[in-house]
Amino acid sequence: MIVIESKDNTLFKYTKKLKERKHRTKENKYIIEGFRLVQEAFKAKCNIEYIIVNEGGKGKLEDYLNQYMDNVKIYEMRNELFSQLTSTENTQGIIAVANINNSINNINGDFYLLCDKVQDPGNLGTIIRTAHAAGVNAIILTKGTVDIYNEKTIRSTMGSIFYIPIIYDNDLSLLKKLKGEGFSLVATSLEESKNFFEEDLSGKVILSVGNEGNGISEEIFELADKKVKIPMPGGAESLNVGVATSIILFEKVRQSLL
Amino acid sequence: MIVIESKDNTLFKYTKKLKERKHRTKENKYIIEGFRLVQEAFKAKCNIEYIIVNEGGKGKLEDYLNQYMDNVKIYEMRNELFSQLTSTENTQGIIAVANINNSINNINGDFYLLCDKVQDPGNLGTIIRTAHAAGVNAIILTKGTVDIYNEKTIRSTMGSIFYIPIIYDNDLSLLKKLKGEGFSLVATSLEESKNFFEEDLSGKVILSVGNEGNGISEEIFELADKKVKIPMPGGAESLNVGVATSIILFEKVRQSLL
Repeated sequence: MIVIESKDNTLFKYTKKLKERKHRTKENKYIIEGFRLVQEAFKAKCNIEYIIVNEGGKGKLEDYLNQYMDNVKIYEMRNELFSQLTSTENTQGIIAVANINNSINNINGDFYLLCDKVQDPGNLGTIIRTAHAAGVNAIILTKGTVDIYNEKTIRSTMGSIFYIPIIYDNDLSLLKKLKGEGFSLVATSLEESKNFFEEDLSGKVILSVGNEGNGISEEIFELADKKVKIPMPGGAESLNVGVATSIILFEKVRQSLL
Repeated sequence: MIVIESKDNTLFKYTKKLKERKHRTKENKYIIEGFRLVQEAFKAKCNIEYIIVNEGGKGKLEDYLNQYMDNVKIYEMRNELFSQLTSTENTQGIIAVANINNSINNINGDFYLLCDKVQDPGNLGTIIRTAHAAGVNAIILTKGTVDIYNEKTIRSTMGSIFYIPIIYDNDLSLLKKLKGEGFSLVATSLEESKNFFEEDLSGKVILSVGNEGNGISEEIFELADKKVKIPMPGGAESLNVGVATSIILFEKVRQSLL
């Protein structure tokens, strides 16, 4: 195993850059932290480029990654350097660098979720995890949505991020294409009068949720084919966006299993 | 307005202790941080004991609390001391100290939620907010549940904590009393075969959710009258507890509005 000891090492410098969104986008790569998540990425057949462990992580490789280690490059790195690549305070001593797969060629199915300018990394992570559970076939993100390769988002997905295609649809061309193919866009809002459970969510459908403060943007709202609200008989002002997403996604699950 | 300038001031020392759970429990008081939350507490007719502002907060009092200021004691405190009472990095310059109302005399209605050993303050806060929206009449917490007067929990409730009675039922006496009065306890678990939407949730009902890692404890599970699961057609391993709670609460809302 090659040991990286210098801050001038090319791989160290390259990996460190991937902590910033602009470099992740340019290189089409991102960092996965921690043994459980790296293991999950392998299970999901995620395209992993290389692994870096620190002195402590080295000893745990066999336990977690025994069956996956043959086909991947593994580097060891001195603790002082390694800690510059991680974001959690108590590092588990492993990161993997994986390739981003943002191709619309790998999406199919008739159940999509659109997230319009969701801002909080933890909210987006929870949404991805819930969408995976609900059987969503792909997630579409509009321009202005927080980066899914943010380490906090990845952590909140609990590994679901490796299982579900997620597409940045910056110019809404994918959304418009899908609408052209017969998909119905369903927008959730506080003001519409039809309750979410009174709407038919069967067939080709794109459920959508919006920004924490402002909800779905006007642009998306105008493209919506159906508009629904989540009634709040208790009188709170609003719901957390992850919660609103769960309610609408599992109404679709309910309707499809009935 | 009295200005508090010394760290030996009694009110400063008393308030600082309320940052710890054991002192909150002993004194039956807790701290509310920030103008929006304090305003919300007044609107909800929360029993507020006194308010402390720092030099910056003083000037904003009129804007936020104009109509509530007559009946409450307000102290000003030097910034260095005030910052020891808050937990957010960017303080808004106001805290309120309020009385905890943990009496079972103020609960009524037929729709309760039981949280069994939920650990994460943010999750519990989101659950309280969602329960308020869904029209839950009271929340029952078992021993081992995170403190609801934790500042992170309060913040995540977005003010809903002031509107919904929340009871710590350490010995489960309240739960058993309610069951004796005809309430049905509905437990959510990953293993049960009946889907949540196939169960009748009408009438006197206590919906329940469990700990992030272990789900509902055996003790509560054995008291359950109905057991339901949330199906996950996409194959994720589990749902966030706040998400699971939302799905089951809004199924009850759906059934009651049909």
